Amino acid sequence: MSTETAISERIAISRSAALDLLERIATLASCTDKPGEILRTFLSAAMEEVHQHLRPWLEGAGMQVSVDSAGNLRSLYKSELGEAPPVLLISSHLDTVPNAGAYDGVLGVLIGLALVEGLRGRRMPYAIEVIGFSDEEGTRFGVPFIGSRALAGTLSEERLLDSRDKSGITVREALAQYVEAHPEVTPSVFSQKTVGYLEFHIEQGPVLENRNLSLGVVQSVAGQTRCHLVFKGNSGHAGTSPMAMRRDALAAAAAWMTRCETIANEMDGLVATVGEISIEPGGVNVIPGVARCSLDVRHADDVVRNLAVENILSEAHAIAHARGLAVETHIYHTQPAVHLDSRMIAISEKAIRKAGFESIRMTSGAGHDAMVIAPYVPSAMIFLRSPGGISHHPDESVLTEDIEAAIHTGLCFLDEFATFVTKKESDPRA
Amino acid sequence: MSTETAISERIAISRSAALDLLERIATLASCTDKPGEILRTFLSAAMEEVHQHLRPWLEGAGMQVSVDSAGNLRSLYKSELGEAPPVLLISSHLDTVPNAGAYDGVLGVLIGLALVEGLRGRRMPYAIEVIGFSDEEGTRFGVPFIGSRALAGTLSEERLLDSRDKSGITVREALAQYVEAHPEVTPSVFSQKTVGYLEFHIEQGPVLENRNLSLGVVQSVAGQTRCHLVFKGNSGHAGTSPMAMRRDALAAAAAWMTRCETIANEMDGLVATVGEISIEPGGVNVIPGVARCSLDVRHADDVVRNLAVENILSEAHAIAHARGLAVETHIYHTQPAVHLDSRMIAISEKAIRKAGFESIRMTSGAGHDAMVIAPYVPSAMIFLRSPGGISHHPDESVLTEDIEAAIHTGLCFLDEFATFVTKKESDPRA
Repeated sequence: MSTETAISERIAISRSAALDLLERIATLASCTDKPGEILRTFLSAAMEEVHQHLRPWLEGAGMQVSVDSAGNLRSLYKSELGEAPPVLLISSHLDTVPNAGAYDGVLGVLIGLALVEGLRGRRMPYAIEVIGFSDEEGTRFGVPFIGSRALAGTLSEERLLDSRDKSGITVREALAQYVEAHPEVTPSVFSQKTVGYLEFHIEQGPVLENRNLSLGVVQSVAGQTRCHLVFKGNSGHAGTSPMAMRRDALAAAAAWMTRCETIANEMDGLVATVGEISIEPGGVNVIPGVARCSLDVRHADDVVRNLAVENILSEAHAIAHARGLAVETHIYHTQPAVHLDSRMIAISEKAIRKAGFESIRMTSGAGHDAMVIAPYVPSAMIFLRSPGGISHHPDESVLTEDIEAAIHTGLCFLDEFATFVTKKESDPRA
Repeated sequence: MSTETAISERIAISRSAALDLLERIATLASCTDKPGEILRTFLSAAMEEVHQHLRPWLEGAGMQVSVDSAGNLRSLYKSELGEAPPVLLISSHLDTVPNAGAYDGVLGVLIGLALVEGLRGRRMPYAIEVIGFSDEEGTRFGVPFIGSRALAGTLSEERLLDSRDKSGITVREALAQYVEAHPEVTPSVFSQKTVGYLEFHIEQGPVLENRNLSLGVVQSVAGQTRCHLVFKGNSGHAGTSPMAMRRDALAAAAAWMTRCETIANEMDGLVATVGEISIEPGGVNVIPGVARCSLDVRHADDVVRNLAVENILSEAHAIAHARGLAVETHIYHTQPAVHLDSRMIAISEKAIRKAGFESIRMTSGAGHDAMVIAPYVPSAMIFLRSPGGISHHPDESVLTEDIEAAIHTGLCFLDEFATFVTKKESDPRA
């Protein structure tokens, strides 16, 4: 344990590193494809600019920097061991949604850099690879996780490579053009013996703030079901149709929405959202004949989620039937829950406590790169509190004290992971 | 009673007149401002064309035809009495909504013509004036009843004359141009001694069809309140915000809409409609932060309507408060109920029964010219069944048997009204 950084030193390093990080965040926020807002899309000029800023910082921390064939920025900090050491990934994404905040994604990459810097040249019994994924948000092609899917080798699933951007270029073509323009790229594959994946990310929700906590450990990423519903009644004159003779599609949708909310309220951890609604014909004095609603249901347990979706859609049919309407329901997207690695979770929790913070286990309601990597590499994810729960918005922010807490926790994680890796190397059953 | 037409003759006249009327409806349906659909707006070329068709038909029935300064087509069938006889108006409107059906309005004018024709030259102890109003729908200027308001002398109320059409012309300017182009127009005022107003109109609702009746007598025109509501919560990520931490504006609006419907269901004759809804920001995975709804409430009793509006808006505030949201409610239009004349109603009912039909008293949920005229002239209104309750739509229709029933009833009305007028003339207290 003598090689570990002392607690007072960790606190000092974290404080100073958090301030550096905020300056770097501001620099990277200036890299945008659209002046006046933050927007960085897959393989864009703004993304190249971000790479140019990051490269000297990463190299300055003693890392070898390259770009892979999926546009991921990859940076390796060597192990104290010689050839083919185990590798810990610390990663997040560098792309953004339109009109983004400054922290989503890039914060996790910069924490990775800060952690390597925090080692101050000390080598670990494992290599550290910091990756800045090229696409997580799916802004350019409408399909997310291109960067981490390339790494995981799942890019060819679901005809994802055939997706087109607004100018008609496919993902396949964009990648080919990128490789042609960057002949120095390395293959987009895991480094040899990648044994762990750690991602820091803003929570993008209100839970940590409500609990007054800096950090939380993600236990699983919720599975998701998305549906369209169309209630079909009869339009009519708002004055001449008595209530009892109506087939009001919006009234039916409203009754269904209240049931949908009740079902979600009754099950711990379940969320159900109607985020879109439109009606026809639409007019202050016209009874709506058609109401179209979206439905998004999420839970960490796929059985619970599937039962809830079944219940909610059954309610739609029951309500429509009782009112003499028709309803069409269509499930157009499902994504199973992903459970993160219990040992990596335990190490994360230990690190948080060691850094002096309270830890809670959370379900991530949003998808993240960790979800894509988890089936292939034992993965953990640590959330930082999101003030106001605000994200995907210019008002997105992170408290400086929470960045300090994350870096401090990360430094502890690196030490705990060293113990874990060493034990595992000596006893592969561990 | 010897001057009355015998029942067998009335049936024969009605049957033949209904067929003539349907031909005329088809002819007038071809007069449109927009090829491919029926659209006739205030003082338009299509309206002039309708006048040109109607003029010889009206003159052929022995009437004197003129156009007044508000563009109303006026046609007088003289009384058997000499100077200044009492006058019965039989009227409806000749304009339409966009993409209209063929019956709304024009049917009432053609029934007026058919009734005069049905007299076959017989003169009554009162004159009959058939008026085709120039505007009831308000399609051109967004304000309805221009024709009947001009007649009633209420056109200058509510700054109505300053309303502009899409090309920026005011009602005032349009009327001045019309009078300049038609120097032969008569003043738009009631004829001397106008003692009754009768309007035939399609119901535009499902009540008569549900009761399996051809005709109904309108007792009152419902008062109306229109409101805007804006529920203001917090937008958020559909995955990362637990149900208990949400301020979902659409969920609040849905809870309110179900209460609104329940309140309307609980009060006989009350109708409440949310005909428009929009949300922000709108996205399948985004919790709605803002929901905007319209509200339209109607009832024949103004006290009931005002109480209901108060209740419904209180519910909005209570629901928003309980959920930690804000709500803004704004009443932007109110129109008191109008009660039609009890003697005219009684004559109408007697006429319907005499023609061999069952009669019910109804509330009109929609506004009509009769509502504008009623404060000045004892008025009655008879509804014809609307198949499927469909109106303001190309599928709008009327059963031939119901047109026969209306004409037969109208002929009976003319005889009953003769008795009434004669009694009244001899005893002004009657």
